[in-house]
Amino acid sequence: MDKITLGPMPYMSVMPTLLVGANVKGKANYMTAAWATVACMAPPMVCVALNKTRYTVKGIDENKTFSLNVPAAKHVVETDHCGLVSGAQQDKSAIFTSYYGTLKTAPLAEECPVNIECRLFRSVDCGSHLLYIGEVVEIHADRSCVVDGKPDTVKTDPIVYAQSAYWHVGKPAGKAFSVGKEYKKK
Amino acid sequence: MDKITLGPMPYMSVMPTLLVGANVKGKANYMTAAWATVACMAPPMVCVALNKTRYTVKGIDENKTFSLNVPAAKHVVETDHCGLVSGAQQDKSAIFTSYYGTLKTAPLAEECPVNIECRLFRSVDCGSHLLYIGEVVEIHADRSCVVDGKPDTVKTDPIVYAQSAYWHVGKPAGKAFSVGKEYKKK
Repeated sequence: MDKITLGPMPYMSVMPTLLVGANVKGKANYMTAAWATVACMAPPMVCVALNKTRYTVKGIDENKTFSLNVPAAKHVVETDHCGLVSGAQQDKSAIFTSYYGTLKTAPLAEECPVNIECRLFRSVDCGSHLLYIGEVVEIHADRSCVVDGKPDTVKTDPIVYAQSAYWHVGKPAGKAFSVGKEYKKK
Repeated sequence: MDKITLGPMPYMSVMPTLLVGANVKGKANYMTAAWATVACMAPPMVCVALNKTRYTVKGIDENKTFSLNVPAAKHVVETDHCGLVSGAQQDKSAIFTSYYGTLKTAPLAEECPVNIECRLFRSVDCGSHLLYIGEVVEIHADRSCVVDGKPDTVKTDPIVYAQSAYWHVGKPAGKAFSVGKEYKKK
């Protein structure tokens, strides 16, 4: 074993690249975020960590709704742009085409193959960041990306975020709840 | 636009494949989990959602510590195996070699190139799952995987989890906080 300590830091191996959608002062805004995951199965919930100073925070606090939009790799420039500029300085409502679903106040980005509509369940104050936990009210997806009622990973072509870089999803490494059956006790 | 609604479900585009380490009744146990991300920058925190019925839950509640271990793709069989069997039925302490760091009660899997030691900050009851938020106390990594003080994505070779399948990280899709500068207003 040749381990070294790196000190405490906000590290995760791989993360989803997402656009958090919120209406701020009645206008759609999208910010890039990667600190997100599923928080619960029943009811279905997701969570996303946002710096308290973000413009998006105002919108979520106001409407108690938000969206998580999954951009495809072909939109990596627009996606990264939404992380470089703040809605406080620049109107980002025209970068993507917005539409609204069940909640009416959570803008959904049409160009993203998957859109997750969320109703705020709870926000947890962790320090610099608020962890927003939202109940998934509806999932909208491009018909062309759906296989067996779910977004297909290859067709969706989501962007993996890791260590300040964007990545494509690569080759399969095994079927979950299956490949482990090959395990032989040492 | 050709969108269809898929109904509410616990969907996320891509997720990290991890082993959650906890001492249960004084013995190391590892369970496979993917519903995890960073929760805060300062102080650094991570979160992971666990079904309330999991054996691991007992250990985290008892010790108020846990670990998130990042297996490399070459250990996908052992990793998936830890998600197929419960510590309640089978002793999983010998699947990986455990060592302990700062916290003394959060087992770290030596074979995993990165180990995140966490002290429980809060658990949020979301329904079927508890969202455990932990402060990162230390990060341990294989010396051979570290570049500029951080785990390198290619050298670490983490497993991406998406839609019941494991994937390798693929080709680069752009530099974050950079590629967006190419954006031209439509």
